[in-house]
Amino acid sequence: MPRRLDEIATPAVLVDVAVLERNLERMAQAAGAAGVSLRPHAKTHKVLEVGRRQLRAGAVGLTLAKTSEAEVFVGAGFEDIFLAYPIVGADKARRLLALSERAHITVGVDSVEGARTLADVFAAAGRRLDVRLKVDSGLHRVGVLPEQAVGVARAIAELPGLRLRGVFTFAGHAYGETSPEGIAAVGHAEGATLTAVADALRGAGLEIEDVSVGSTPTARHAMPTPGVTECRPGVYCYNDASQVSLGVCALEDCALTALATVVSVPAPDRAVVDAGSKTLSTDPLRPHAEGHGWILGRRARVSRLSEEHGVLAVEPGERFRVGERVRVLPNHACVVSNLHDRVLATSGEDVLEEWRVAARGRVE
Amino acid sequence: MPRRLDEIATPAVLVDVAVLERNLERMAQAAGAAGVSLRPHAKTHKVLEVGRRQLRAGAVGLTLAKTSEAEVFVGAGFEDIFLAYPIVGADKARRLLALSERAHITVGVDSVEGARTLADVFAAAGRRLDVRLKVDSGLHRVGVLPEQAVGVARAIAELPGLRLRGVFTFAGHAYGETSPEGIAAVGHAEGATLTAVADALRGAGLEIEDVSVGSTPTARHAMPTPGVTECRPGVYCYNDASQVSLGVCALEDCALTALATVVSVPAPDRAVVDAGSKTLSTDPLRPHAEGHGWILGRRARVSRLSEEHGVLAVEPGERFRVGERVRVLPNHACVVSNLHDRVLATSGEDVLEEWRVAARGRVE
Repeated sequence: MPRRLDEIATPAVLVDVAVLERNLERMAQAAGAAGVSLRPHAKTHKVLEVGRRQLRAGAVGLTLAKTSEAEVFVGAGFEDIFLAYPIVGADKARRLLALSERAHITVGVDSVEGARTLADVFAAAGRRLDVRLKVDSGLHRVGVLPEQAVGVARAIAELPGLRLRGVFTFAGHAYGETSPEGIAAVGHAEGATLTAVADALRGAGLEIEDVSVGSTPTARHAMPTPGVTECRPGVYCYNDASQVSLGVCALEDCALTALATVVSVPAPDRAVVDAGSKTLSTDPLRPHAEGHGWILGRRARVSRLSEEHGVLAVEPGERFRVGERVRVLPNHACVVSNLHDRVLATSGEDVLEEWRVAARGRVE
Repeated sequence: MPRRLDEIATPAVLVDVAVLERNLERMAQAAGAAGVSLRPHAKTHKVLEVGRRQLRAGAVGLTLAKTSEAEVFVGAGFEDIFLAYPIVGADKARRLLALSERAHITVGVDSVEGARTLADVFAAAGRRLDVRLKVDSGLHRVGVLPEQAVGVARAIAELPGLRLRGVFTFAGHAYGETSPEGIAAVGHAEGATLTAVADALRGAGLEIEDVSVGSTPTARHAMPTPGVTECRPGVYCYNDASQVSLGVCALEDCALTALATVVSVPAPDRAVVDAGSKTLSTDPLRPHAEGHGWILGRRARVSRLSEEHGVLAVEPGERFRVGERVRVLPNHACVVSNLHDRVLATSGEDVLEEWRVAARGRVE
């Protein structure tokens, strides 16, 4: 394997291991200070080596979304996985049943109909699957509304084959907030909403142990809420331009970048790099959709993307030359991971290891 | 392997083979009628089985963008590849040199500096690489401006190790046109611009054999221009919601769809499917960025995407139930191919074959 970055073919995705380790340590400390368990969402990296580092830094287990992702991590020896997604269907239930023989699997539910498709398979096998009820704390994507939680939870708790263990939410609407105060307010509301639902469920006679909040932007604000037991941030391990834009981290906290080569300079105000949407994705910058990535150490930004072209808007006085290499900070780290079969673990200009993105493309 | 679609885990990407074959046949006929060679851009599918079908339908070879993609196709026996991309760098040149021992490789160039990085390696090996000059016909991405073409082409033609064989362009700005007349005008201009450049280069004493235009929307309009020798459409094999929106094809000409399951119906006006941006990508609909995919046979559209969630805006009077399966027509077929390790070749409800997306994720 090449030892130095200048021997690496571009485009390539790099992960600065020192920055990664510092990010993991900081979030572990924040969770410890808040007295909650940390269960990072591994969708950001999809890499076994990063998941193992998260566990070493104190995480109680990992979060993922899909059954096929859990199969990859359980197959590699991970023992405690929460699928924070409303898994639906007998075929998925059978795969979860097989997984639950080898690891502690917990699954999200947000409807009686969906939960029943899991319950039937587990009940027929004489087993019980741990589930958590997804609560909509304002994102309006999936999840029951807080006022409907007791009714749905009761019906799910009565299904044989399931054990309702907790509640969880994801306040992804924080990504639309344009100030630190706005993000803090969403995080506080996230914690308050979910703990109130947990209390209401307990008042209805249900045993709710896990009260799990999420998201890198809101983590520090939602974790300290009394009654919260767990946090599931994802992006914090790598960070990205959106987290910097949101004020959640500094530029030097970004571990993941794309190494790219300038392949064309057709005009003074335009240069084109070999990293396009196949490398960076077309995901927008948050909270304001401005461009498709930043060029580290330069003023130029990626202003347009096609599959293999990143078009830089070049500022007056700045010059790029064909063959020059640049580092691109992407808008959204998670989707970059999902585009690549491998990332390179680096220290400065040295390539330490190649990490396979083991759960890349696992959509089932 | 499962035989029927209802045995397939979702989300999954399906390719209707009959529609695919009809699309290949129609474009081959159009190229034949125009008297030009067809060299489809295989980036849309990245599948060996589809590439072979394109050759069987009369294509003279394939177009790709990156060196690593050519390695996949040449490794599988494809003998004539044009990389329609300004490849830059000695490392890539060495890989191209190895490839050119096994297949006829032609490469795009748009600068003397970039061309020199290829020329040096081929000259040192006593070999010559066929290149074509990329001309900017209005997209303003890469490519020399028509008025600069003679100067750049002369300098490139003088480099040992290269043989300047032709010119090519891609009129991707057609994707911003909102009427069939607008698209036709872009296509006519594409053909006129490129043939004028070819004539100017010949006037300067250069032997220009290949005059290659591109793009599915403009193909039919640019191909008939006298002097055009080749066309490189890509999306036409699968088509997508953007091609339908642009008026380039009909809904029944779309071969690629995503099979998805409704996992949550949290409100009467909202349903959520298990196909998110990891399945569909966040690429916008063309020419107007409206939503992230159409639900076939229903009025609902995918209004929001996150990685594993496709949020449907449900129309009054329409209902979705948890567990129901739907077919999603994506905005952009090429980027869907790049997200998936495999696609399923189907006929009606039958799964005929599983095709590996062999060149998926090849960004180098």
